[in-house]
Amino acid sequence: MDHAVVMAGGSGTRFWPESRAHRSKQFLDLTGGGPMIRETLLRLFPVVPPERVWVVAGRKDASHLPPGALGIPKSNILLEPEGRNTAPAVAYAAACIARRDPGAVVLAAPADHAIGDLRKFRAVIRKGLRLARDTGRFVTLGIPPGHPSTGYGYIERGRPFPGSVKGAFEVARFTEKPDLATARRFLRTGRFDWNSGLFLFRADTFADRLRRFLPEVDRGFRSVFRGDRKGFGRRLRDAYRRMPAVSVDYGILEKEKGILVLPADVGWSDLGTWHSLHEFLGGAGGNVTFGDVILEECRGCLVRTDAGVVAVLGMDAVVVVRSGDAVLVCPRSRSEEVKRMVEEVRRRFPALA
Amino acid sequence: MDHAVVMAGGSGTRFWPESRAHRSKQFLDLTGGGPMIRETLLRLFPVVPPERVWVVAGRKDASHLPPGALGIPKSNILLEPEGRNTAPAVAYAAACIARRDPGAVVLAAPADHAIGDLRKFRAVIRKGLRLARDTGRFVTLGIPPGHPSTGYGYIERGRPFPGSVKGAFEVARFTEKPDLATARRFLRTGRFDWNSGLFLFRADTFADRLRRFLPEVDRGFRSVFRGDRKGFGRRLRDAYRRMPAVSVDYGILEKEKGILVLPADVGWSDLGTWHSLHEFLGGAGGNVTFGDVILEECRGCLVRTDAGVVAVLGMDAVVVVRSGDAVLVCPRSRSEEVKRMVEEVRRRFPALA
Repeated sequence: MDHAVVMAGGSGTRFWPESRAHRSKQFLDLTGGGPMIRETLLRLFPVVPPERVWVVAGRKDASHLPPGALGIPKSNILLEPEGRNTAPAVAYAAACIARRDPGAVVLAAPADHAIGDLRKFRAVIRKGLRLARDTGRFVTLGIPPGHPSTGYGYIERGRPFPGSVKGAFEVARFTEKPDLATARRFLRTGRFDWNSGLFLFRADTFADRLRRFLPEVDRGFRSVFRGDRKGFGRRLRDAYRRMPAVSVDYGILEKEKGILVLPADVGWSDLGTWHSLHEFLGGAGGNVTFGDVILEECRGCLVRTDAGVVAVLGMDAVVVVRSGDAVLVCPRSRSEEVKRMVEEVRRRFPALA
Repeated sequence: MDHAVVMAGGSGTRFWPESRAHRSKQFLDLTGGGPMIRETLLRLFPVVPPERVWVVAGRKDASHLPPGALGIPKSNILLEPEGRNTAPAVAYAAACIARRDPGAVVLAAPADHAIGDLRKFRAVIRKGLRLARDTGRFVTLGIPPGHPSTGYGYIERGRPFPGSVKGAFEVARFTEKPDLATARRFLRTGRFDWNSGLFLFRADTFADRLRRFLPEVDRGFRSVFRGDRKGFGRRLRDAYRRMPAVSVDYGILEKEKGILVLPADVGWSDLGTWHSLHEFLGGAGGNVTFGDVILEECRGCLVRTDAGVVAVLGMDAVVVVRSGDAVLVCPRSRSEEVKRMVEEVRRRFPALA
């Protein structure tokens, strides 16, 4: 059967002041459609029914995960005692899924990405699930690159992959975030896609690769699931304490042979910064507002407030965000650097970071 | 004896969001030295002792005028039932002063201006008081114009005025706010000063001119001060209801002959906008902050907050002000237009205007 795992353990700072130490990006309503994690789940339900959708998140974020509001069974919400990057998170969910459904095929998806074209998205997920099931291979979704971004990893397509599912390619290689010259070269070749962070696999394949490539993680979860129900929480805490922090990309995919990529022209955005949110929501010279905002003679601004009013006069391409007791103002083009600014906030006003 | 009248009846909108319908500029702490009205009074006390300093303000602002905090007797705080511009305000104070001290000489000063050089300011006030006493003429303070401002009235100097007080001139004429070309021409002649709004007069001269130039105002106050103490408040309300709204400049000074001007190079600023506040406090490429503010790679910014934190990254010459539930962002060069923006705030969010 098909399952989906939503990875909600991240903690970003680039959406400060809305994101805070205890309110990560996946729990924000950035696009106006509700908390991102909820949007992510709703987007999956037409393909994978709620009882087979899983969420892996940090125990610290439990208050953001009321089971009723998410629409999935409480037992499908897996809380990690501490964050250890994506490999343990997916391994945790994969172990739960395999115990219930040994023949499962699994989509793993970040909780904090946005998708513009839902119809195409569902179609490509269905293709991916079939491809992973039929071949036993890992399948990644590759995004047609809109510009030579230096913020994403890239996937180089190799030969077309023959078979009943059309449009798949062998992965020639994964690359880390490139510099600008390299990114430009990638785009010119026409063979590179952005790595979306969405991937699919059969539970038995994943279990096998975990044992081979990440034996420490594998042993950790074996110790967790061996034994009675009563000691589960304690065993989980013990295992996580000793678990290495490692991503699926680095720990498994870069070591695996025969991975496939499905190009997915689905209006994807990782919403990495205020700038990319502006781009996703309308972009260019238009203004994007949220909350009680007054703009006069502004162009290309992103202005948000959760209370009171924010009035902006005569500004071009700036981000103005008020959230709680904090206000941020910066040029849209520099919203990458908000991350660095938050470090300063953390030093001087820890309660507001 | 010397007296001073501080005119605190104004209600501006250009310091929104700090200034609001019920919190006028003169009650704000714009420079960090306390509420402007208090700074204005403290600046006068070395020249005119507190028991001879008067404040005229609106009844609606009574809560901003705790007598103890201002340092003047309660009976020197005159509350107007409604605002009628400066001529009735000064006439009200002049009538009170003349009843106590018929030979009084009076300095009238706005409550919401800033002075950079207190030593020079005191010296020129002393000269002005002596000049007004000796000559019986109105004396205005003229500010050496720093740039061809279109925001101020100008005073053209005529012939030097002979006498024991050095440096005074006959006023050739008052002008309204000029356009830029005219302002430039004024500066080139070297004969024009900005009209500071500070002026001095003998109480008997003022009473005479009020009778001649503004008989309605004169009659109004006669009716107020005629009769017993008990009915004073009611008579004052009645008189103000019928009183014309008129400024001293328009109603008296522009009709008066023989006015003198004393050039006053005292670091004066009317603090008319956020921009002029920035200029007064340090100006140019420097940043001016107030409250918990984090700036990174900013130049020439004015950033203020009364709560929480405001973080600004990579901005040049902008104003960012958070006050209560409102935030303003605009280029410093457009802070004149805040006035217009507040009208929009008033329409859409009346509680925040």
